[in-house]
Amino acid sequence: MTKTLNKLQDFSVKLNANRFFEFFVVSIIIFSALVVGVKTYNISDELLNIVVILDWSITIIFLIEIIIRFVAEPNKSQFFKKGWNVFDTLIVVVSLIPIDNSEMALLGRLIRIFRVLRMVSIIPELRILVNSLLKAMPQLGYVMLLMFIIFYIYAAIGSTFFSQINPGLWGDITISMLTLFRVMTFEDWTDVMYETMTVYRFSWTFFLTFIFFTAFAFLNMVIGIVVSVLEDERSKEKKKLELDSDSIDLESLNQQLIEIKKLLRNKN
Amino acid sequence: MTKTLNKLQDFSVKLNANRFFEFFVVSIIIFSALVVGVKTYNISDELLNIVVILDWSITIIFLIEIIIRFVAEPNKSQFFKKGWNVFDTLIVVVSLIPIDNSEMALLGRLIRIFRVLRMVSIIPELRILVNSLLKAMPQLGYVMLLMFIIFYIYAAIGSTFFSQINPGLWGDITISMLTLFRVMTFEDWTDVMYETMTVYRFSWTFFLTFIFFTAFAFLNMVIGIVVSVLEDERSKEKKKLELDSDSIDLESLNQQLIEIKKLLRNKN
Amino acid sequence: MTKTLNKLQDFSVKLNANRFFEFFVVSIIIFSALVVGVKTYNISDELLNIVVILDWSITIIFLIEIIIRFVAEPNKSQFFKKGWNVFDTLIVVVSLIPIDNSEMALLGRLIRIFRVLRMVSIIPELRILVNSLLKAMPQLGYVMLLMFIIFYIYAAIGSTFFSQINPGLWGDITISMLTLFRVMTFEDWTDVMYETMTVYRFSWTFFLTFIFFTAFAFLNMVIGIVVSVLEDERSKEKKKLELDSDSIDLESLNQQLIEIKKLLRNKN
Amino acid sequence: MTKTLNKLQDFSVKLNANRFFEFFVVSIIIFSALVVGVKTYNISDELLNIVVILDWSITIIFLIEIIIRFVAEPNKSQFFKKGWNVFDTLIVVVSLIPIDNSEMALLGRLIRIFRVLRMVSIIPELRILVNSLLKAMPQLGYVMLLMFIIFYIYAAIGSTFFSQINPGLWGDITISMLTLFRVMTFEDWTDVMYETMTVYRFSWTFFLTFIFFTAFAFLNMVIGIVVSVLEDERSKEKKKLELDSDSIDLESLNQQLIEIKKLLRNKN
Repeated sequence: MTKTLNKLQDFSVKLNANRFFEFFVVSIIIFSALVVGVKTYNISDELLNIVVILDWSITIIFLIEIIIRFVAEPNKSQFFKKGWNVFDTLIVVVSLIPIDNSEMALLGRLIRIFRVLRMVSIIPELRILVNSLLKAMPQLGYVMLLMFIIFYIYAAIGSTFFSQINPGLWGDITISMLTLFRVMTFEDWTDVMYETMTVYRFSWTFFLTFIFFTAFAFLNMVIGIVVSVLEDERSKEKKKLELDSDSIDLESLNQQLIEIKKLLRNKN
Repeated sequence: MTKTLNKLQDFSVKLNANRFFEFFVVSIIIFSALVVGVKTYNISDELLNIVVILDWSITIIFLIEIIIRFVAEPNKSQFFKKGWNVFDTLIVVVSLIPIDNSEMALLGRLIRIFRVLRMVSIIPELRILVNSLLKAMPQLGYVMLLMFIIFYIYAAIGSTFFSQINPGLWGDITISMLTLFRVMTFEDWTDVMYETMTVYRFSWTFFLTFIFFTAFAFLNMVIGIVVSVLEDERSKEKKKLELDSDSIDLESLNQQLIEIKKLLRNKN
Repeated sequence: MTKTLNKLQDFSVKLNANRFFEFFVVSIIIFSALVVGVKTYNISDELLNIVVILDWSITIIFLIEIIIRFVAEPNKSQFFKKGWNVFDTLIVVVSLIPIDNSEMALLGRLIRIFRVLRMVSIIPELRILVNSLLKAMPQLGYVMLLMFIIFYIYAAIGSTFFSQINPGLWGDITISMLTLFRVMTFEDWTDVMYETMTVYRFSWTFFLTFIFFTAFAFLNMVIGIVVSVLEDERSKEKKKLELDSDSIDLESLNQQLIEIKKLLRNKN
Repeated sequence: MTKTLNKLQDFSVKLNANRFFEFFVVSIIIFSALVVGVKTYNISDELLNIVVILDWSITIIFLIEIIIRFVAEPNKSQFFKKGWNVFDTLIVVVSLIPIDNSEMALLGRLIRIFRVLRMVSIIPELRILVNSLLKAMPQLGYVMLLMFIIFYIYAAIGSTFFSQINPGLWGDITISMLTLFRVMTFEDWTDVMYETMTVYRFSWTFFLTFIFFTAFAFLNMVIGIVVSVLEDERSKEKKKLELDSDSIDLESLNQQLIEIKKLLRNKN
């Protein structure tokens, strides 16, 4: 029994490292993405049947692939500590649940869409890109919080003064924040402003200061990231330089000179 | 009497440094922000009564907190020299004034909204962010002045030529500047342009040069900040390097060599 | 016969290196661009005849120029390995095909428009600019792929949920991606959002997260290019520095000191 | 006679260097800008009279100021070689021409508006800013040319295919370029696109590639400026470093060591 298992594991490890197998999995993921896309078109019942069958085949291939990856993993307990593995397993497990109820069907379709994200987990360059985006997040955290406070204050002021003018835009603080986000993207913001200016003549100060503050905070965010990225690069380079040059430095030269002077003085 | 006061101060200092107390104050500030948000919804009279009571409780907690901070401060005269302390005190004092008159009520609500800003004064990371934004202001000053001059000239030209075409957009220099700000944000700027082109066929040069100048000035502003921020970083790093390396340098090595030569020559 | 050919080649090489000839070709290209522009106006039949004659003259001049360049090239097989030469030849050859059929005429006009691109192939500074843009492409490749995946997923979700609301915007995955591109450029995106919010109250999360992700990915792209360009500059500078300084370094100074110590010890 | 002239010059030089006089001139320029602004409002005839008188007073003060500056200049022939002096003189001279004819009156008003630009010529920080903007222009020149070529080609294609669909937007190459500029600013660009898509289904490729190319070229422009500015800063810093450190370097240390070795060998 153990022998069969060992054999299976050896086979899995080989298969997992096989370039053709990797290429095959990427093809299946791209194909599954295309199937997701096809389903958004109005297609004949015949074609729909084929798509459903393809869908199930893909789910089963994904299931087998996960099992192979799991068997190939020497340390089983580490397998589910990797975020991407958990993500892949979840996608497959949910895809396996048979769904008839229409509401659940929608969820099932959503899950099938998120399969496209497996493209990110399988292509290393994309994984690096996403990881670097996630790494930049905490740096952005406080800028986001500051922006949220600016939004909150302006939304509170806006819904206090303008809610009577247009409840659809300034009815409560949530709607007001959405309206302010719209103003920040400059989308028909003058229409929003001119409407309030019919009642409060100086309400343009509200909008201009808001645009100024948010644009400024956003600018700060961008610059913050650029500077921190550049700093990272520089510190990496510096560390490399230090490793190169720690064989010889001015300090050791000085030490040598001191020894020479001692030698000379001793002679005298 | 003095003994009681001393005891009180000791207690205040301890309380002020207490992490739980800090957490409690932050919670109250967030809670007060939520109360501000809730008031923008249409709520039942019952709930409104609760909100009013909560509002007064928060004001009283803030009053006590300010008093504790003031008592904890060893040098009383320094307390009001810090901008954030003055801001906090003002917010509390104005909140305490009982208001019935409807116009003053609006002001009262505004003050309660600005309490959310206390979040910035209490979270050190946000305070640093705001301070760095304020520090960048003077650098931007002259670019802003230049942009204002561009706006002023274009607004003067615009209201001279286009005021007959659409007084709502080009009536006088103030309205024209607002219209130009709108053009700068690209918000329906072609509508503004096509309208003037029915009378002056070449008025598109007015708009295109304006967009070019403002975009260019803005670009310059962004680059100016990036460069100055990077320079700051570099000069900081350089200063640190100099501190590290001032124990030994080429000059001192040279000095040593000169001494060695003297020693050798003396012997000869 | 070979003698005549050699003479012709000598003449071609001289002509090709002649500054006046270069200036003449640039003038003809600009003139051909103007002719393309003139044809878009409603012009009299008389003028149109002149334009057609000019067009043919330009084609013939371009043909002669290509032949001169080809004859001037010492290594004939290398001539068509340069992208710009292939481009120039194609333009001339297609321009020579006589076209009467209206559909082909359109293609003929298109080819004549692309002649303007010869400006890029003839002005070295523009060629450098275009080459540097092409060089930056692979760096952008993976960011583009990531953005495409984001678009694909959101388009799939969008056409799943919103296709009943507005088939013109969310009918299938291709139309949805176009709509999302529109949302990314902030062009009337609130109209698109408000429409979906009438059915799904929380669909604003769909749009806000999409804007957040794409803006973030775009930001990353910009920063990536800036950093890589700066790195290029730095590595170039570094290489230059190393070339300058490899005559003398700390290592060799240390070697000298060791020799001195040996000399001193030997004497002792 | 010469004595009086000399006295006058001495007085002018003193006055020109006087801080109070400088402050006075700046005040007059700001005041003249305000007068320009006031004229855009609907004002009573009485006030208009005052404004006309103020206008003439300002012109005369400016005339006197120019004369003082001219007399104070020791080298008269250098005076008109400075761009700002020519600009100031032109403004004053044209302001002095009495104008009755309505068309000329408009020109007169325009000239009075451009007086605001004197703010730039009088405040040194603004002058530096404008000069640095002008210095960046040639760097941008080729990117602008490339962008113009992109615009020209797309405008030629656009007016070839879409002129029948909407002559107001695609009538000829000039109008098409204006429409494309609008597309580049994302101003209602989808309306323009959807209109053409009713005839040519795949015309969205035209718009998407155009947006891609222009956005990319613009990006390149921004990065080009940032990099060149940073390089400037670095080269300045480097030059400064070289000046600091050319008193002592590794080469001279090496020279010293060679001398020491010679001394030691001589003794042996």
